[in-house]
Amino acid sequence: QSNVTVYGVVDATVESVQAKGGNAADIERRTRVTSNSSLIGFRGTEDLGNGLKALFQVESGFNADGSGTSTLATRDTFVGLTGGFGTVQLGKLTTFMRQAGAKVDFNPAATGIGFQAATYGTIGGIKTGVDERINNAVMYTSPNFSGFAAQLAYSAGENKLDRTAPAEDVNANAYQLAAAYENGPLYVSAGYALSKDPSAAANPGNGNFAGTFGLGGNASDKLKTARVAAKYTFPTNTSISALWDQTKYEADLSIASTEAKRTAWMVGAEQKFAGNQAVYLQYSRSQKIKEEVCVDGIGCADLDGKTQFAQWTLGYTYSLSKRTMVKAYYTRINNQRESNVDFYLSSIGGVRADQDPTGFGLGLRHTF
Amino acid sequence: QSNVTVYGVVDATVESVQAKGGNAADIERRTRVTSNSSLIGFRGTEDLGNGLKALFQVESGFNADGSGTSTLATRDTFVGLTGGFGTVQLGKLTTFMRQAGAKVDFNPAATGIGFQAATYGTIGGIKTGVDERINNAVMYTSPNFSGFAAQLAYSAGENKLDRTAPAEDVNANAYQLAAAYENGPLYVSAGYALSKDPSAAANPGNGNFAGTFGLGGNASDKLKTARVAAKYTFPTNTSISALWDQTKYEADLSIASTEAKRTAWMVGAEQKFAGNQAVYLQYSRSQKIKEEVCVDGIGCADLDGKTQFAQWTLGYTYSLSKRTMVKAYYTRINNQRESNVDFYLSSIGGVRADQDPTGFGLGLRHTF
Amino acid sequence: QSNVTVYGVVDATVESVQAKGGNAADIERRTRVTSNSSLIGFRGTEDLGNGLKALFQVESGFNADGSGTSTLATRDTFVGLTGGFGTVQLGKLTTFMRQAGAKVDFNPAATGIGFQAATYGTIGGIKTGVDERINNAVMYTSPNFSGFAAQLAYSAGENKLDRTAPAEDVNANAYQLAAAYENGPLYVSAGYALSKDPSAAANPGNGNFAGTFGLGGNASDKLKTARVAAKYTFPTNTSISALWDQTKYEADLSIASTEAKRTAWMVGAEQKFAGNQAVYLQYSRSQKIKEEVCVDGIGCADLDGKTQFAQWTLGYTYSLSKRTMVKAYYTRINNQRESNVDFYLSSIGGVRADQDPTGFGLGLRHTF
Repeated sequence: QSNVTVYGVVDATVESVQAKGGNAADIERRTRVTSNSSLIGFRGTEDLGNGLKALFQVESGFNADGSGTSTLATRDTFVGLTGGFGTVQLGKLTTFMRQAGAKVDFNPAATGIGFQAATYGTIGGIKTGVDERINNAVMYTSPNFSGFAAQLAYSAGENKLDRTAPAEDVNANAYQLAAAYENGPLYVSAGYALSKDPSAAANPGNGNFAGTFGLGGNASDKLKTARVAAKYTFPTNTSISALWDQTKYEADLSIASTEAKRTAWMVGAEQKFAGNQAVYLQYSRSQKIKEEVCVDGIGCADLDGKTQFAQWTLGYTYSLSKRTMVKAYYTRINNQRESNVDFYLSSIGGVRADQDPTGFGLGLRHTF
Repeated sequence: QSNVTVYGVVDATVESVQAKGGNAADIERRTRVTSNSSLIGFRGTEDLGNGLKALFQVESGFNADGSGTSTLATRDTFVGLTGGFGTVQLGKLTTFMRQAGAKVDFNPAATGIGFQAATYGTIGGIKTGVDERINNAVMYTSPNFSGFAAQLAYSAGENKLDRTAPAEDVNANAYQLAAAYENGPLYVSAGYALSKDPSAAANPGNGNFAGTFGLGGNASDKLKTARVAAKYTFPTNTSISALWDQTKYEADLSIASTEAKRTAWMVGAEQKFAGNQAVYLQYSRSQKIKEEVCVDGIGCADLDGKTQFAQWTLGYTYSLSKRTMVKAYYTRINNQRESNVDFYLSSIGGVRADQDPTGFGLGLRHTF
Repeated sequence: QSNVTVYGVVDATVESVQAKGGNAADIERRTRVTSNSSLIGFRGTEDLGNGLKALFQVESGFNADGSGTSTLATRDTFVGLTGGFGTVQLGKLTTFMRQAGAKVDFNPAATGIGFQAATYGTIGGIKTGVDERINNAVMYTSPNFSGFAAQLAYSAGENKLDRTAPAEDVNANAYQLAAAYENGPLYVSAGYALSKDPSAAANPGNGNFAGTFGLGGNASDKLKTARVAAKYTFPTNTSISALWDQTKYEADLSIASTEAKRTAWMVGAEQKFAGNQAVYLQYSRSQKIKEEVCVDGIGCADLDGKTQFAQWTLGYTYSLSKRTMVKAYYTRINNQRESNVDFYLSSIGGVRADQDPTGFGLGLRHTF
């Protein structure tokens, strides 16, 4: 029987949210008590000799507020080996590309309604999956060379059954190739993700692209994301960060094809002060979705609408200790006329085009 | 990484239950193996200095018998701060008023079919929620003054969307204000609970009052409970306890209104003997529900029926140690002609008017 | 507060599976990442004096690959007492008969697609429940006499409600009586299981026999299993094992009756070598199902078809330590013309008559 570490986080906030604007009926202000990525985990390592180690982790998210149903192993859960050759893991995993979103975000642990993946982790609100853990994963991470590491991740789609006539092999596998450098004050990463048949049920992190972008039903479609992120901390305890993400959805049926592309970016800054406090401000923006639909023998049409939107978050943290923090934040999504995007985490629900979700909150975060 | 305490209870009994009487077909006697509020939890505190402490707890109930689906954080789960000012907690919480029901109940840990909240925690079998944990909760408990403490609890309804036409703001928030005194042999508590729109989905502990008491659909209805409880232990190891609960459901639509009120009470006594044994007997009664329906311009009508019912429980416990106990019990609900109330916990299911659920059981309770 | 041991297993493999043959469309080869009976548990004992001990365990399976929903207490979970009189447990339990299947199986922990209960734990693919844990269980195991122990297990059906007209008492209880001897190199066990109304919902481990074998609807039907198993390890680190299982399903309605009987057996061998490696090969076979349907006043008819099938598994394990293992395996089910049996664990889904599921895998198993 080995050494198991029990660890976790309970993060809960009292929030006031609303969504107004546009022509639809307002979503009136209401008070919520929200659990923000609360989790409990069990992990450990075993030294196998010759520099080789076995790794395991079982991590489960839970709603600290009693809402919904919380189940086991919903967060990073794996078995793996690490040694001179690098690290191999099997399970449900966070990749470098997902990590990049968290690295540049100044919300504690990149959680809550202020987390801004709504812009760079979706196409018009449909999640690309890059900011989600990948299921059925095998991941190789290189050894760390003075802060630099490369990573190759594979997620098995597991549903290679023909689903429509005429018979067609679908194979909703996903791949990510990324590199990250982290040393002292500097963090930089770059990565590329390819998701085949991203609307297949086996990719729960992904949304229904096939239904949204012109070609319904099953298609040999693809989702491609390139992402670059960086963060730098100055000796003044000032940190700045930026992220750029370009995602393209492509579908090609025998008689028609469609492509939807959007570019998103984020910038942020945080100032620590008085030893245990910090303020941060971050802004991100999803540019207009460039959508083109082509029908064989007829031609192509652009379907671009006013689909831009942006989000900004202002936050403050007060650390009572290394493990316990009081936090406060305000965030707002500005949707343009044809955008109805909601918060990425703890969404309000029912947001309609041109409505702007806003919220502020105050709460406690404890890490154990 | 901090100190986490893993704790829990496995409580399982072999039971024989039935429900007979009235004109409906009997529910024949059957044997069950029942898990009684088995749980596993993780909790800890962190000393923040200056008398301030951070608190956390993650507690999950589970069915030790393999029945149903057991998920995480289904019991008291919270993050909080405690200090000279008192205690503030956010999460899913047990209030003083819920605690009152457990304090006066002599069933070990107030669990099993012998637990009598069927009378004082329901209106005619529809749960009022007072004997359930509250979700989306913020709770303040005063410092303890020689055994006395006061408490204010708030539960966010989180569903302030218009749901029916004509548009109406619903806001299923709930509030509780209570005080408790516990010092040496004496425990006394009193509290008042107000639940707005108690039939809303956001209040899972509450039943469908709107559908039962004359006015269906969405209503600006309210549920109000006053509860007093006390317990006293004599030097002879004899304990006596009592609880009184009055609950009123009110709904007021533009053309009609309804009100349903019931009073319930319980008395109990326990005698400890031989160092590690105890016998207890408790009786509780829900008086007739006084229901009045008024239609504007027409008048009011009383809809009182023979809705009284009572429950009594006789129990015996034999402690093998401080943590392990053998227990046995018999309980019976006497339903009047228009009452079809089932056990509050581990119900039989399908009980019809005038049928009397009875059950006896024998089992083991282990606390770790 | 007592001593709680946290323990578990994370077992994940990369697999390639397919099912081909027969006239139906092939199930094409696809890659999967599969979690094999990964689990986390909490257990402990308390010494009560006089040779008496209290036992508890809470064990939960989880999908390490992010698939599906993993909940609490889905594996052996109980409270119990053990002493000179033997052991009594209440909860969700593994019996000697279920254990027999695991004892003779050389797959590490008898898990994965190579586990062969598909033959001896089903009738034509419908699970008999003998290789599942029993719910609502009370189990008595005798003291161990030089390796010999006897066991009586009871599983309460809990659904003794009349379900069909004409009214009929159904009582889906199950019973098992078994004995096992394990001493040095030899393991032998024999057991008999009786399941009443095995198609009732209360027996989740069992399949829909009533719907499959000629008489639909509710019936006072029975499932009876006799099982013998043995294993012997030679001084050369060679182990051989065998299991024989005969299961009979009987239903008797007022106007007709049906009986389906099948015999299954398994043999296996494992050779350990080089201190930390092993290879194993095992073969099992389910004989033709002998089915007879009788209609009162008309006579009986045999419905035997080509329902035989067999499975074989070849495996290799390489232990990196006592707790960490690399494993590889190949397995194949050969279905005859009227058999469409899938893997018992981690099934492919959609296998049709005469198709042969095959798979190979490679992965890691870590015990903590």
